[in-house]
Amino acid sequence: MEGGDASGADDRTGMPLDADRFEAEATALREALLDAQFDLADRSSRAVLILLNGADGAGKGQVLNRLHEWLDPRTIATLAYDINDRCDLRRPPAWRFWCDLPERGRIGIMIGSWYHTMLLHRATGRADEETFHARIAETNRIEDMLVAERVTLLKLWLMLGDNETGGSAINTEAPPGSRNNPLVREWAEIDTKKERNRLVRAARELIQKTADCRTPWHTVRADDPLGRDLAVGRHLLDTLQAAVRWQPPRPGVLPFKPHRVSSTKPVLPTLDLTQTLEKDRYEIELADAQARIFAATQSAAFRNRALIVAFEGNDAAGKGGAIRRLRSALNPVHMRVYPVGAPTDEERARPFLWRFWRHVPLRGHTAIYDRSWYGRVLVERVEGFAAPAVWQRAYGEINDFEAQLTRAGYVLHKFWLAIDQDEQLRRFEARKATPHKRFKITEEDWRNRENWELYAAAVEDMIALTSTEAGPWTLVESNSKRFSRVKILRTLADRLEAEL
Amino acid sequence: MEGGDASGADDRTGMPLDADRFEAEATALREALLDAQFDLADRSSRAVLILLNGADGAGKGQVLNRLHEWLDPRTIATLAYDINDRCDLRRPPAWRFWCDLPERGRIGIMIGSWYHTMLLHRATGRADEETFHARIAETNRIEDMLVAERVTLLKLWLMLGDNETGGSAINTEAPPGSRNNPLVREWAEIDTKKERNRLVRAARELIQKTADCRTPWHTVRADDPLGRDLAVGRHLLDTLQAAVRWQPPRPGVLPFKPHRVSSTKPVLPTLDLTQTLEKDRYEIELADAQARIFAATQSAAFRNRALIVAFEGNDAAGKGGAIRRLRSALNPVHMRVYPVGAPTDEERARPFLWRFWRHVPLRGHTAIYDRSWYGRVLVERVEGFAAPAVWQRAYGEINDFEAQLTRAGYVLHKFWLAIDQDEQLRRFEARKATPHKRFKITEEDWRNRENWELYAAAVEDMIALTSTEAGPWTLVESNSKRFSRVKILRTLADRLEAEL
Repeated sequence: MEGGDASGADDRTGMPLDADRFEAEATALREALLDAQFDLADRSSRAVLILLNGADGAGKGQVLNRLHEWLDPRTIATLAYDINDRCDLRRPPAWRFWCDLPERGRIGIMIGSWYHTMLLHRATGRADEETFHARIAETNRIEDMLVAERVTLLKLWLMLGDNETGGSAINTEAPPGSRNNPLVREWAEIDTKKERNRLVRAARELIQKTADCRTPWHTVRADDPLGRDLAVGRHLLDTLQAAVRWQPPRPGVLPFKPHRVSSTKPVLPTLDLTQTLEKDRYEIELADAQARIFAATQSAAFRNRALIVAFEGNDAAGKGGAIRRLRSALNPVHMRVYPVGAPTDEERARPFLWRFWRHVPLRGHTAIYDRSWYGRVLVERVEGFAAPAVWQRAYGEINDFEAQLTRAGYVLHKFWLAIDQDEQLRRFEARKATPHKRFKITEEDWRNRENWELYAAAVEDMIALTSTEAGPWTLVESNSKRFSRVKILRTLADRLEAEL
Repeated sequence: MEGGDASGADDRTGMPLDADRFEAEATALREALLDAQFDLADRSSRAVLILLNGADGAGKGQVLNRLHEWLDPRTIATLAYDINDRCDLRRPPAWRFWCDLPERGRIGIMIGSWYHTMLLHRATGRADEETFHARIAETNRIEDMLVAERVTLLKLWLMLGDNETGGSAINTEAPPGSRNNPLVREWAEIDTKKERNRLVRAARELIQKTADCRTPWHTVRADDPLGRDLAVGRHLLDTLQAAVRWQPPRPGVLPFKPHRVSSTKPVLPTLDLTQTLEKDRYEIELADAQARIFAATQSAAFRNRALIVAFEGNDAAGKGGAIRRLRSALNPVHMRVYPVGAPTDEERARPFLWRFWRHVPLRGHTAIYDRSWYGRVLVERVEGFAAPAVWQRAYGEINDFEAQLTRAGYVLHKFWLAIDQDEQLRRFEARKATPHKRFKITEEDWRNRENWELYAAAVEDMIALTSTEAGPWTLVESNSKRFSRVKILRTLADRLEAEL
């Protein structure tokens, strides 16, 4: 079955499929689909995400119902979106798609996916040519990421012939209660001829530019409903079988020596870790920065923005203390702190960014991450939990993730808290000796310490490869806790005031 | 430490605590708190939920920051709510509290809990005396349920003396940036003397009527900040230690014989399972009911309502087929189907209703449950997964859950699909023989069949004890699939039209 021209119609005659032949083929197909679906569920090695697109009236609702008839409904879910939902818009546009990503072993059928938004914006002129192309490029990278993160995509476009976005002339849907209303209405807003033409052109371009070997488009002729359903079923069967056959790549071997991916000059050695701050000054400056952060996050301008702060750093560098000073400057109603530890089973069954997307703050709110998505290029890299191919592609994935946040108006700031090895040893020893700090020091901390050089190399790469204008890293000299905390809070206060 | 008059102030002199004595006591307290916190996290046998209440200016924000200073922030979370959030209001009021329930082993500190809503509504007159008392009674039942479901509650009320809800005269908070603005402002809307007086009276009554031995209130004098913090810390220590000491009750022994809890007359034997429907009539009536459901759920009146349908029934009674006919009558954008199977680890770590609350639909949407919260009084009862004390209290818990939904305007309907033993056997055999239905029949189904009488007794109890006007059960004679499906869809169509 090749993409681009699949059809269930009788190839020899070009005639619509008759009901008897459909029944015969559908029965065999259904059996094969169910087998593949159960194999997928048993292995739980990949998720399958079906993007169901096409003109209103091409039968998206019918196809949906057919797939629910053929498959075991317990491991498939329909994921459909109201593009005009104003409460969903209180987070970045990608949030809703991420939240619904099916877990491995399951199948999601998405209607109104990211393609719908892109096309609608292009057709109505809300996105110009250039923006549209930027979204296409980003979409390609995100889909590559999904595929690499064990989500198999099946991209289907139901074609209604030439007048493919009209919908009023050709309407094969017969939803209950209203023969003129397709069950799924996506394009109701496209009401002028100019918009319709732009939509047709944009759709054609989109299909061409977002189809590569790993994420091809499958167009399906929709004028013959039975043939259409068979064609969709066959594409799905191919997809499920490929997902079941998939084998995880052999885990790569971690280079023993510190290894840099980027070739920039190391920045950690340039930090002046001797900087300090006397107590009186500390208290004044801290209170001042806290007051500025409080005022900024309570301001009217912030209501349509949001703040995301990620804290990373050497063990014992003082993340907890800094976070405490930050959170006490924020209204608790609009703030959450997320300590990032081992993922839950729901998180493990999905792409690694899911657990961060699910907690993306509402506009007007602040999310503080105590460790973050950078774990992939730090601890997972150094400890070998992620294969080199996995953490190496993560830099780009993370940059895209952050770009989606900042494009939505979110203020994103990342801190690396740096101490030297001597200071770390002093703090470890002090923690061992202080009863209420005992808990902060574990075997793992001592083990991480032995990998100091590997971590340093990973940090250098991280900073070189993920420093962006919208998501900057601030390196914080943290041998002095007072100096560190004030630098962090002042940096945030400056940033917020500059952004608002 | 007894509830009701705890204070950290020097009991001998009544004087505020001086800083030195505070430091000494706080250091020891902190150590004990951390030990208890780690024990709690290690055992993961209970969650701890702190409800932090009191007047604006009594220092809720300060106490919050203190607890974050004293405890390991990785297993505590602040849960604070914006009572005027309009997007939250698109679901029943309790939804946001449920979503945030801490998992076992962790501590949540809640500001703006259900008490805040109750008091605000009472003070502003939105709730009359009678409604207020009904809420109090419901709250007591819900808190009993939380305690039984392994959430330990610590209910704290910070007292500011006589003028306890004024807030303007006495303001001990010094949040950054504004000495006159408490970090946590809950009562800004209470602006008339009349409302203030009503709030004081209501708060007093609330504290009296919602304190029992398992969920006592602890009032803490807030005029001395250091003493206040120590008192809160001590209450928390008691709470944590009690939670750590807690032992699960010995599992009860399941009665071998069918056993009824309620003494109503059995209804299952009264069903006429011979009812059937000829094919032509079936198709007409099914399409008609689907059209009515489509029209009702697309209507303007439905936008502020929502539909929740729970399907339970004998194995092979036809839940899947009925659900498919229902979902194909709904706009996929506003509908989700939730098959209820084994809980995930996130679900297992919280009270059993959490997994249903987390998927409560938005207003204007429909949620279809393929098996439901009734599993507790059906499979968990019969298979002995839940001890008798657990499933026996579930009837009341479920009634409260459903009352909260229907009070918010949700239309709730529950179907029991009944077949007899002969019909079940026929269907099991047919499934074994049909390739694409093979998957529907498992060892477990045969095992359940052996417990037919036990299930029948459980169903009788369930129907007798959870049939309410707002959440009715419809028993569906399902030996004929056509009859069953039409009865289900017609019942829903009638119900929707009557409600809208």
